[in-house]
Amino acid sequence: MSEITETTGALARALAEAGIDTPIHEVEALVRGVAASAVQDRDWLRLIHPQVDAEAAFAESFEALRRSYAEAADGIDNPQQESRLAALRAELAERGLDGFVVPLSDEHQGEYVARRSQRLAWLTGFTGSAGLAIVLAERAALFVDGRYTLQAAAQVDGSLYEHRHITEEPPGAWLREHLAADAALGYDPRLHGTSQRDRLAAPCRAVGACLVACEDNPIDALWANQPPAPLGPIAPLPLRFTGTEAGEKREIVAARLAEKSAAAALLSAPDSIAWLLNVRGADVANSPLPHSFAILHGDGDVDWFVDRRKLLPEIPAHLGNAVHVQAPETMADVLDALADAGKAVLIDEAATPVWMVDRLTDGGADVIRGADPCALPKACKNAVELDGIRAAHRRDGAALTRFLAWLAAAPPGSITELDAVDRLAAMRAGGEHYRSSSFDTISGAGPNGAIVHYRVTAESNRSLEPGTLYLVDSGGQYLDGTTDVTRTVAIGRPEPEHRDRFTRVLRGHIALATARFPRGTTGAQLDTLARQFLWRAGLDYDHGTGHGVGHYLNVHEGPQRISRMGSGAALAPGMVVSNEPGYYKTGAYGIRIENLVAVKEADEANGGFLGFETLTLAPIDRALIDPAMLTADERAWLDAYHARVAETLTPLLADDTETLAWLRAATAPLTAA
Amino acid sequence: MSEITETTGALARALAEAGIDTPIHEVEALVRGVAASAVQDRDWLRLIHPQVDAEAAFAESFEALRRSYAEAADGIDNPQQESRLAALRAELAERGLDGFVVPLSDEHQGEYVARRSQRLAWLTGFTGSAGLAIVLAERAALFVDGRYTLQAAAQVDGSLYEHRHITEEPPGAWLREHLAADAALGYDPRLHGTSQRDRLAAPCRAVGACLVACEDNPIDALWANQPPAPLGPIAPLPLRFTGTEAGEKREIVAARLAEKSAAAALLSAPDSIAWLLNVRGADVANSPLPHSFAILHGDGDVDWFVDRRKLLPEIPAHLGNAVHVQAPETMADVLDALADAGKAVLIDEAATPVWMVDRLTDGGADVIRGADPCALPKACKNAVELDGIRAAHRRDGAALTRFLAWLAAAPPGSITELDAVDRLAAMRAGGEHYRSSSFDTISGAGPNGAIVHYRVTAESNRSLEPGTLYLVDSGGQYLDGTTDVTRTVAIGRPEPEHRDRFTRVLRGHIALATARFPRGTTGAQLDTLARQFLWRAGLDYDHGTGHGVGHYLNVHEGPQRISRMGSGAALAPGMVVSNEPGYYKTGAYGIRIENLVAVKEADEANGGFLGFETLTLAPIDRALIDPAMLTADERAWLDAYHARVAETLTPLLADDTETLAWLRAATAPLTAA
Repeated sequence: MSEITETTGALARALAEAGIDTPIHEVEALVRGVAASAVQDRDWLRLIHPQVDAEAAFAESFEALRRSYAEAADGIDNPQQESRLAALRAELAERGLDGFVVPLSDEHQGEYVARRSQRLAWLTGFTGSAGLAIVLAERAALFVDGRYTLQAAAQVDGSLYEHRHITEEPPGAWLREHLAADAALGYDPRLHGTSQRDRLAAPCRAVGACLVACEDNPIDALWANQPPAPLGPIAPLPLRFTGTEAGEKREIVAARLAEKSAAAALLSAPDSIAWLLNVRGADVANSPLPHSFAILHGDGDVDWFVDRRKLLPEIPAHLGNAVHVQAPETMADVLDALADAGKAVLIDEAATPVWMVDRLTDGGADVIRGADPCALPKACKNAVELDGIRAAHRRDGAALTRFLAWLAAAPPGSITELDAVDRLAAMRAGGEHYRSSSFDTISGAGPNGAIVHYRVTAESNRSLEPGTLYLVDSGGQYLDGTTDVTRTVAIGRPEPEHRDRFTRVLRGHIALATARFPRGTTGAQLDTLARQFLWRAGLDYDHGTGHGVGHYLNVHEGPQRISRMGSGAALAPGMVVSNEPGYYKTGAYGIRIENLVAVKEADEANGGFLGFETLTLAPIDRALIDPAMLTADERAWLDAYHARVAETLTPLLADDTETLAWLRAATAPLTAA
Repeated sequence: MSEITETTGALARALAEAGIDTPIHEVEALVRGVAASAVQDRDWLRLIHPQVDAEAAFAESFEALRRSYAEAADGIDNPQQESRLAALRAELAERGLDGFVVPLSDEHQGEYVARRSQRLAWLTGFTGSAGLAIVLAERAALFVDGRYTLQAAAQVDGSLYEHRHITEEPPGAWLREHLAADAALGYDPRLHGTSQRDRLAAPCRAVGACLVACEDNPIDALWANQPPAPLGPIAPLPLRFTGTEAGEKREIVAARLAEKSAAAALLSAPDSIAWLLNVRGADVANSPLPHSFAILHGDGDVDWFVDRRKLLPEIPAHLGNAVHVQAPETMADVLDALADAGKAVLIDEAATPVWMVDRLTDGGADVIRGADPCALPKACKNAVELDGIRAAHRRDGAALTRFLAWLAAAPPGSITELDAVDRLAAMRAGGEHYRSSSFDTISGAGPNGAIVHYRVTAESNRSLEPGTLYLVDSGGQYLDGTTDVTRTVAIGRPEPEHRDRFTRVLRGHIALATARFPRGTTGAQLDTLARQFLWRAGLDYDHGTGHGVGHYLNVHEGPQRISRMGSGAALAPGMVVSNEPGYYKTGAYGIRIENLVAVKEADEANGGFLGFETLTLAPIDRALIDPAMLTADERAWLDAYHARVAETLTPLLADDTETLAWLRAATAPLTAA
């Protein structure tokens, strides 16, 4: 913990000197998110210290942090929504454009976006993890999904931007309605995949408008103190954590290319590259991503387009001779060479910027569309990764249990959402191999719990009052695994409605946790198991039931997921996925119960069938359960889960008799409650 | 019933005179299937008789029937598999082709195929409703899905054709393995949709082979007595059955075109055309389809490409001025005219032959890909259609109940699968508005019940023996609705395993029947509800849980279905779908419980939620239920269902005291059993 404190202090001083008034918990969040990934872990420091002076090495990162924080300070509240929108319109007019599309995504089409690329937040003030704005001369609209409708309403001025549900009132329909014939609608070809462009092109064609690729992004021209591209250091991740040598991974994936008759694959997802090369970076908060692109060739060689300044000295030896580090600027030339030679190149349309696809296609390459060839082998964790993930969950469960015991002991009304965030972060921070949070903690008291992706700020901060529910969704990045867990806790005595809804959510959680299913089953087929008890009461929740989770990588990872939206990916042994049904009553409370589970072979009697192993270890609040609503099997599951939680965590909490006593009571069998 | 007997006798005599020895039940099946649709119904006869002499009007149909039956007699047993395969290879060699693809589908890409188009059956002997063969010079393969693996093994010589599972071992992989570089693989562009062609083109490209469109089908050149194209008469379907005037339907669908910015839509699904124009035809067995194509224009006018010889005299007045009957040969010119004018034409890729798509695209049309615009309004039945469907199910339930009572009274071992088919057909045939079966009855005793799409023949015919299960899946076409129902019956005393499996299937059936779900839910989301109790025991079934059903139209109708394969179509009020989980133990027995259900609004307490109304009315065999495995809610559902069956059917069975007595016992509450 000393490194964290030291770093936090240094950053807080630097921010103060720059005249930026920053609460210490926000500085800590920044440290945990970005800079911490480079300095927090002892193993990592041992790698660095022999060669370089830590402060000098990270001076540039700190400078970027400082700038991006300055940006955040005037961006998230965003008193400048109106002036920025006006400036963008003026810029567009100067360029002869009648409109511009502002996606949330960056060049890698993922949800993990560096501050430099948070153009949507800079422009509109909206800071959710999914959204899109379209600005026309006379009107503008912001499109978000059901998770973010409340947040968008709070952050974005409705007189400047119409607020629309991205699937129910999609951008295409809005464009058909408002785009003039002969209008020129601009987009940045680095920030969209081809299917996204197709969805813009169709309405343009329908009304006779023109979709125009912009050479450079007009927002970048206006954003005075836009942070520079991040330069987070990239280090090897040792074999004792990854379980498979990078060379073997390259061979496995190259064999997949051969199956698809592809001579090469374009990799644009940073987590795919991190997995393939057994490296981790530090370019965004919460996930150890090395921003870069790569081309994997059929012989297993890799061209890696990455800024050399990010590479720690150990990297060249770690990579070996088959991985060729190239400057990012040379990528266009390498694509042209592939195209000139008429090579068959596999691309994942969803993750590849259209400029690259166009460059390959127009140049004569045979573009084969398919899934990122790293995605499936990355998703199916090997035995070493699974052991690491289990170990990380034991540590993480102990930290969460310390927090929950502290929460239970606090007098109702005495603590706030922010207090809770800080306390939970402190509990995790001391753990072995801990590096950072895996996402911004959601700490929602009462009505704030109903905002699915709520992020507490000084303005929204509420205290945890008696008779309300408190929802906390958080996770950690450990060198041996990534965690993500949600618990909902009754503050004081819960209402009957709270218990009814919580028990319906719990029954769905158990139905999924205990499901048996044949090989080939997708998560889409299982989603309804988690919803059925809510549906019977005419209730539902507007988010997926589960997302894939990486191994010390993205907390949202494909291809597997458990969602009504469907995904062609079958659940396969070794995949890690969340099990997180919920229920939200706007303005009143939110409920979610989230454990991570790993797909495993079911017992031998069910040859060929699969099931789940629950990884997360923390008590589920029994005060919120109505035992009369549970079947005998459901009660047995809960009791067995709690017994396992108690047995596993007790040795890790031996230093803390108060937490141990609380844990014993919290995990007692339900029937004896 | 007199018309049926008369027609059957006439056809049997004609077949005998032609020297074709035909069991009378097969003649009846033919009559019910094809010719019957034109002569069987009193209403229909009234339409025809004033103007034309029935025998003369149908002489051509009878001639086609006679020929196609001659074909069937030597095609289904198919002692000529080897010689036909050799003849096809010689024909291909002469044309400079190294291979040829033989799909099951006809020009309309549906599963309802006239005898003339049953090229796959002619060549290979395989008579299932889904499959594909590929013939190369040195090897050939037949691809079928899980429903048909047993049937294919029985019908098709494995030394001539490799047998492959169409999704697990798809044609593309086989072609990659066996197609030589520079080979020319032929296909008939009238019989494939574009996505099917794409799936053939990819492996050709991968190995450097060429995919060649054939001007005419090489099988047609070899098939000496190929039946002519059917000339089933087309008649109006009166408003009292359809509930909506054809003119109103044309306006509704034209408005959908406008939403998609399409100037016209190409309709290639005969059931869409039948629904849109409120007509029914008689070109295939079991479904009143009028083979034809149509183009719907944005102003609601229709060009209908149909053989004028099929139109009954009433048709022109029924169609009015906005529907223009055109000769089928003129279709290419009309497509060219649309293309020349650069019109935006909506096509449903899955249902449109590639030659039409190519003609439009190459000619300069703006081809918009989307769902058949009739599919969704056709699927959502109006109140008149739903009332008709309910009425048809009452009559059909009474017929099935008479049959089940007869079955229960017969001494075990005394009747055969074919006896049962005949008896059930006779029970249905007398019903008001009855026109034909809606598909070939599946009548499977013991191990034959495990063949999911079993069709009994003289060779396969088994008697119903004590200690076995008997599965009967059948349905009727009535002027006011289409039915499809499966019951599984214990012959004598069932084994404990029978009862365990049947009760798991029943629990799945009830879970689906009682499901509540929000608007926007697709059938794919509900499929697992029906499987979960089998999955818990490591069991499953290899078919979908439910298919859409038409209104006096196709017994398999999209876009809705309940299947793990997924379908983007949300379930909407008025859709009719089957609920038919099952379990099959190869070589032992088959179980399926199938009712049709209609999607309806759930009760007001669940505002906005949907549920199902069960339409089918017939007892479910209580001897096969283990009441101890059911929850109290499940028992209550079954008892309430049986009470409704008894109450509804009793007045229709007043003439038959034996059936009434059996019905009373068969529908008694389970707890009193």
